[in-house]
Amino acid sequence: MMTSRKSVINIGLLGLGTVGTGVMQILAKNRADIAAKTGSELKITKALVRDPSKTRPHLDPAVELTTDASSVLTDPAIDIIVEVMGGIEPARQYIATALEHGKHVVTANKDLMALCGYELFSAAQEHNKNIYYEASVGGGIPLIRPIKHCLAANRIRSIMGIINGTTNYILTQMTAAKKDFQDALAEAQAKGFAEADPKNDLEGRDAAYKLAILASLAFQSVVNVDDIATESIVEMSVRDIMYADELGFVIKLLAIGEETQEGLKLRVHPTLVPKDHPLASVHNEFNALFLVGDAVGELMFFGRGAGSLPTASAVVADVIEAVHNIHHGIENHAIEMTFAAKPVVPMSRSRSKFYVRLKAKDQPGVFGSVATVFGDAQVSLDMILQTRRDVNLAEIVLVTHEVVEHNFYQALERIKQLDSIRNISNVIRVLERG
Amino acid sequence: MMTSRKSVINIGLLGLGTVGTGVMQILAKNRADIAAKTGSELKITKALVRDPSKTRPHLDPAVELTTDASSVLTDPAIDIIVEVMGGIEPARQYIATALEHGKHVVTANKDLMALCGYELFSAAQEHNKNIYYEASVGGGIPLIRPIKHCLAANRIRSIMGIINGTTNYILTQMTAAKKDFQDALAEAQAKGFAEADPKNDLEGRDAAYKLAILASLAFQSVVNVDDIATESIVEMSVRDIMYADELGFVIKLLAIGEETQEGLKLRVHPTLVPKDHPLASVHNEFNALFLVGDAVGELMFFGRGAGSLPTASAVVADVIEAVHNIHHGIENHAIEMTFAAKPVVPMSRSRSKFYVRLKAKDQPGVFGSVATVFGDAQVSLDMILQTRRDVNLAEIVLVTHEVVEHNFYQALERIKQLDSIRNISNVIRVLERG
Repeated sequence: MMTSRKSVINIGLLGLGTVGTGVMQILAKNRADIAAKTGSELKITKALVRDPSKTRPHLDPAVELTTDASSVLTDPAIDIIVEVMGGIEPARQYIATALEHGKHVVTANKDLMALCGYELFSAAQEHNKNIYYEASVGGGIPLIRPIKHCLAANRIRSIMGIINGTTNYILTQMTAAKKDFQDALAEAQAKGFAEADPKNDLEGRDAAYKLAILASLAFQSVVNVDDIATESIVEMSVRDIMYADELGFVIKLLAIGEETQEGLKLRVHPTLVPKDHPLASVHNEFNALFLVGDAVGELMFFGRGAGSLPTASAVVADVIEAVHNIHHGIENHAIEMTFAAKPVVPMSRSRSKFYVRLKAKDQPGVFGSVATVFGDAQVSLDMILQTRRDVNLAEIVLVTHEVVEHNFYQALERIKQLDSIRNISNVIRVLERG
Repeated sequence: MMTSRKSVINIGLLGLGTVGTGVMQILAKNRADIAAKTGSELKITKALVRDPSKTRPHLDPAVELTTDASSVLTDPAIDIIVEVMGGIEPARQYIATALEHGKHVVTANKDLMALCGYELFSAAQEHNKNIYYEASVGGGIPLIRPIKHCLAANRIRSIMGIINGTTNYILTQMTAAKKDFQDALAEAQAKGFAEADPKNDLEGRDAAYKLAILASLAFQSVVNVDDIATESIVEMSVRDIMYADELGFVIKLLAIGEETQEGLKLRVHPTLVPKDHPLASVHNEFNALFLVGDAVGELMFFGRGAGSLPTASAVVADVIEAVHNIHHGIENHAIEMTFAAKPVVPMSRSRSKFYVRLKAKDQPGVFGSVATVFGDAQVSLDMILQTRRDVNLAEIVLVTHEVVEHNFYQALERIKQLDSIRNISNVIRVLERG
């Protein structure tokens, strides 16, 4: 082979928290296997930490701990910088410095890739280096590499993911154990599946960041996070989950991207998913990405979307690819720099199928008046459940056919004003059966 | 970049059946995208066919059809040979000739890779060329590349797959529509999911070939197909499926590989899969591979395991990788040549959990005598169902705990000889809950 192999590859680690520790553990445990696969010994020589005196259970004594970022970033002996500190600053500046100093970069930083991806790819291209980011989405599940390489023969039509473990855990517990939202959230926090401040997860912002990264690759477009419509799961109730069950659905927080002739459609919202859809059986903290390619058809990738070792598995796979590329002199192949910025279709012009739960006076003609308003707005109904709630109040659950969002919400405004309607309890989008 | 790009890559196609036609269609339809990704125009210049005069709906008129294999294999203008003819001979000889003449090879040939993989990798190494075979297993589902690259940081502990669409279609129809085996088979044949002679599929041989390819990569061992124990699905009845349902299981044909301290365990057999396992919701003609890695944990890949365009999607992904490697002078990186041949544990020494259905005289003490025989052989029971079949005959269904196969079958022999036992209707292995 016409390649010059470096017998040792030196790695600088930025951050030694959950993921950084996992990276260190994997490189120690599977050292011999990885050396056989890459033809090089992989050594973490330095790790940037806040507090070098802290007790660290899996610490490799050969690793020099330092609080001085530039001693890692500019060390001429280091080949690859692994950034697992998270957050925008100073991670962004550190990666820029590392690229300037001729390092390849592996990052697990979702926020940074979603918000500053283009800037980082540009910097990598300018310095003729690569940036790898498999671990930024979906933890250990291979997603970036399969979309980039395994599906390279396809035009991807749509991607749909359960890519936030916190909300999936909560919704699974609400479904399986009929726990209400607050109890399920408290349990998720107790088990470490939800943060003390779970706002970003519950409101779909975390999933939107991940969708931005995935949709960008799938549709070869620079996606702006602000173009992704998000809806929270906090309004979901056990009542909705039980009605959904009766109608043949489970409720999941889906991140959805589609490429249509009008442009990209990008959104994150709670969704009624048909029980026989592969995403319906993705439970608890597990994640999955379901996609449709023009050649491959339906495909799903399932696994652990977070956690120390799963995420570190993706980081180390990237490190191994970086080593391979160093050996073969593949300095820069950022296909991301060739992406256009495709137009995004606003939600109001999207078509969706809706579940509506409302309370009405239990009197003759109520259902007829609701159906008439929908009919006038060209919203046709697919399924109806009516149950008496108490002596005077009836609960009506409807599922529409696919309709233009704008028409639907106009009709809903008029329904709210009907005398016979007490309130609209919830509105949830419904995934059309395949 | 220090690379010399060929602006045109010429491809020779061996075979223009279902998959070959799909390859031609994808390269035509997504030509511009693929050229943008690879930096080269990909052209099929010649295709080896049996009958050049046959009408072919998706034929690209620029492709020269020929019946002369050597005019394709030795053409100095051709860079990559794509073998989609199937079968052992003459495909094996053709691939050897192509490698000798300096071509890279992409193949979708499962039989050849399972039976002659080592020989082909050796030939590729000798001629400093690569052989790509993503399409040989799992149709469009990325499996080879993820195991090789995305999971490179892991030791893979076990793989479990639904990798035969014919049997999965039949078992799904038996489960969902309570069709008996013969009707479900006839329907599968009518829909093109089963061949006229379905023996290789029904008996697990097709799945064993695929398991040999996957297990070889997952466990980095040269796996011999003959070391894989197989069992047919022809004995499965709707009765078993209904009892399984009652006990919380669905019946699937699983191909299973595990690496244990004693060696590899490799087998294909009908299996009771717990309903909450991700493989339980893989229906009809879909395939899936579930695996456990020491870092990544549980992972599943799901999609279409056969068909023209899905399989061609995998072939073209390999072609794109081959082009990338040609551009970067990566001539040969057959990690498969580094594999050892790890020992294989015989089934009789394996531990399994069993489902047993038997018919007994409906008289006092029958169940006690069965339980005693099992107890004496140290086979303990996990679940029991007893239903009266008719006035004189009772049907007993049991599920054991995990036991050594040898002990279990010895006990079963003794049970068969009990006066009170009419017959053992079926014995099926059971997947332990995770």
